[in-house]
Formats: sequence, C-alpha cells, structure tokens
Amino acid sequence: MVSPVNAPTAAILVIGEEVLTAKVVDENSPYLLKELRKLGVATRRVEVLPDLVELIAERVRSARLAFDHVFTSGGVGPTHDDVTIAGVAAAFDVPVVRSPSLEKTIRELCAKDFHERDLRMADVPDGAELIYGEGIHQSPWPVTAKGNVYCLPGVPSILRRKFAMLRDRLSASPFFGKAIYSRLGEGAIAHLLDQTVAAFPDISIGSYPHLDRLDHKVMITLDSRDEVRLQAAATHLVGLLGDAVTRVE
Amino acid sequence: MVSPVNAPTAAILVIGEEVLTAKVVDENSPYLLKELRKLGVATRRVEVLPDLVELIAERVRSARLAFDHVFTSGGVGPTHDDVTIAGVAAAFDVPVVRSPSLEKTIRELCAKDFHERDLRMADVPDGAELIYGEGIHQSPWPVTAKGNVYCLPGVPSILRRKFAMLRDRLSASPFFGKAIYSRLGEGAIAHLLDQTVAAFPDISIGSYPHLDRLDHKVMITLDSRDEVRLQAAATHLVGLLGDAVTRVE
Repeated sequence: MVSPVNAPTAAILVIGEEVLTAKVVDENSPYLLKELRKLGVATRRVEVLPDLVELIAERVRSARLAFDHVFTSGGVGPTHDDVTIAGVAAAFDVPVVRSPSLEKTIRELCAKDFHERDLRMADVPDGAELIYGEGIHQSPWPVTAKGNVYCLPGVPSILRRKFAMLRDRLSASPFFGKAIYSRLGEGAIAHLLDQTVAAFPDISIGSYPHLDRLDHKVMITLDSRDEVRLQAAATHLVGLLGDAVTRVE
Repeated sequence: MVSPVNAPTAAILVIGEEVLTAKVVDENSPYLLKELRKLGVATRRVEVLPDLVELIAERVRSARLAFDHVFTSGGVGPTHDDVTIAGVAAAFDVPVVRSPSLEKTIRELCAKDFHERDLRMADVPDGAELIYGEGIHQSPWPVTAKGNVYCLPGVPSILRRKFAMLRDRLSASPFFGKAIYSRLGEGAIAHLLDQTVAAFPDISIGSYPHLDRLDHKVMITLDSRDEVRLQAAATHLVGLLGDAVTRVE
C-alpha cells in the first residue's frame, strides 16, 4: 500500500516501560492515531520504548528527520524514570536547560505542596518552544516542543488536553476513505486487487480478512486525499468484483 | 529503570497499515506483551510499521540482532499488501522460496475453494523453520520462523492460536513484582526513589502518577526475577516512605 500523496506525516513514540512490562495497555497511541487521521496527518510509525536516554535520543533523531511531526508520550515527570526531555535534547544535540518561566509557573501552581524536585519539570531542551494553546484550549501549563517534536505527558487524560492545544497548528486537508466488502476470500480476488493497484497507484488499497462475519470474507479499504480519484478507483474495483460485492461504505 | 537482569528479550513488530490509519486498534501487541511477560520474556520494543518491504527488512534486521526473540504480526496473506515474508527474508539476506510442504497443505486445506494465488502463503524465507506445535496446540498450519523471528498473522484470534504453539519454546524463569502506593506526590518522594534506585540497581523501579484516585497519588512498581532482592528493595522503600504508604500489593 502506498502512503497517501502529500499528506503531512507523523511518528508517535511512547516512552512506556509500564506498557512494555504489560502493567498498562497503551491508550495514547490509539488516541493520537485517530486524532491525527481526523486532522489529515498520516502517522507512519509507532514505537514503544523503554526509559533509556540514549535509545530515546536515537529513535527521536531518526523520527524527527523522517517525518513532519513527532509526538512523544510519557517520561516528563519529576522522578528518576522521567528521561524523555534528556532524550529529546540529545536527539537535537542541545543541552537540557531550566526554563525560568516554567519554574515560576511550577512554584505558583504547586504553592504549598511545592517540592524542589518538582522543578525538574521546568527542564526543557535548549531552544524549546512552549505552546500555551488558544481560546478554550489555553492552559497555564504549556506543551514543550523542540523543533518538530512535541513532548506530551503519559497520563491519558492530560495527554488529551495537551493534544487539543496543538490541533490548530497540525490541521491539514482531510483523507477520504471507502470500504468494499467481498463475499469471496482473498485468494479468489487478489488478482483483481492487483489490477486496481496498478491502475490507481495513487490510491492506498488494503485487504483485511474477516473470519467471523456471515455476509463477507474480506474488507477492502481505499484511501486518498482526492475524493474524485477515490470514487474512480472504487467504481473500477466494484466493476471487477461484480457480484462478489456485498456492500460498499 | 533498568531492564530485568538476564531475562530473555523480545521485540514486537506490528505490520499494520490498518493500525496506522486508525481503522483498527492494535490488539496483538497488548496480547503478546502480556503473554510474553507471563512467560518471563522482557519485551523491550514495540513498533507499528506500514506495509513497505524495505522498511520492514530494516526494522526486522535491527530487532533480530538486538533481541532474543522477534515477533511480527500481520502481512502474511495472499494479497498485494502482504509483504512481511519478503521483508523478513531481506532482513536475513535470503531469497523467498516456495515451501513444497506448505503448498501441499494449502491445496488440501482449501480443497474446492483453492485459488492459485493462495499459494503465496506457501512462500517463506529460505531456510525457514515450520513450527507445528505439540499436544493440544498442534496444527496442520505451522508458524513460519526464520532464525529468531516468528511471523504471526494479523487476525487476532488466529495470532493467539499460533502464539500458543510457541509457548513451550519461549518459557523462561518468571518475573516478580510489587506495587507500593503513596499518598504523597512524585515531587515529594522523588529523592526517596533515587535512594532506592541507588541501593538496588538490579531492581526495576517505576513511578506512575495516578491523578484520580482518592487514596494515593503515585503507584511505585518494583520488578525483578529475584524474589528475595525484590522483597529487600520493597522493605527498604516502604521504610523510607513511612506513613506516606497507603498500601503494598
């Protein structure tokens, strides 16, 4: 399947020892995948990584060079296992510095429950941008971004609020999609899919066996940013499949 | 957090255009993470990748050299977007060859519903091992493995059956874990965690803020393959935390 033409691309890096050790199921990458898709951004990579600075640095570096946007989740608190900021800084070959404005905010927000150690959350990669959001999404606590890398928290409810602060700057032109359901199995229709892929190389075409459905054996998906081409490809394939088609959505 | 000492390691590579495009939520990596953990295998990497042969080859190569076991999920059917076998073969610098025994099995299993194209599922990396399982997990359709890379299907119900065929060969010594709940927040206890990490460098210690619980603010996890050391570390940390501890599990 080809990648949608001209879509801005993204990678999601979950810094998640707790995910790797099966203590929690990652909710953040499914959420980001769905929201980015709605915004017209094509996520091309998801990785779940342990809390190791050098590894995070290597994978952030690889992702920031290969994709338009990179989102990290997790590892931004004040404890020993919070090493995402150090990893992102290393990926840009810059030091970690303490942000005076974040330090001030932490002292104010924590007030009586303030501990020196909370100031670790004021540490950012040198030259980081602090994004406070706009309108109803404005927040006294910003999203830290370095270049095209956005550092989001691991707690799902907070990650969602922080992602909302970024929406406006990420929005692209939308994707269009169709699903065609076939009563014949993949082996029987593979050559027809090949013909359609050859005739419409600009359309992303996927084939997924559904084993437990009564009315079809395969779901075929077509995706594009060009609604007219998408319709042409769908019409072409439906013509080839003939009465194997049980429905089109 | 350090990786558990001496545990066999694993990587999971989800070949999942449908996951990246948010059509389905990946169930396979959470399942494999949990099952591998139960078997005493430490998964250190999860990646979700698009259906691109060169990329799959690069990531399988990286994973097979870095980890004891590698599991791929998806991309093993007969259609144009099924490229996992080609990617795994390229990662080992071997050609894809047709397995005579798999060809025979496909012709038998498909019988009247056989299509030439189904034979693509008889293609394996040269030198692949075919694992048929034992006892109640025995199956006429094997898991294809090349070296330390196991190629599992993307359909969750089939992946689970196929993984069951591998269990016996993966089993290692188990992990032990404890969770300590703190009524104080991360900033207040970070220095106590540091002390424990320094005193017990062989124990994996994680800290996770829980924002919506009434009885605690942080869950601290301790993991080890050594039950005695684990207990010692937990006792040490509980002593440091004093009456901040609300419970230990």
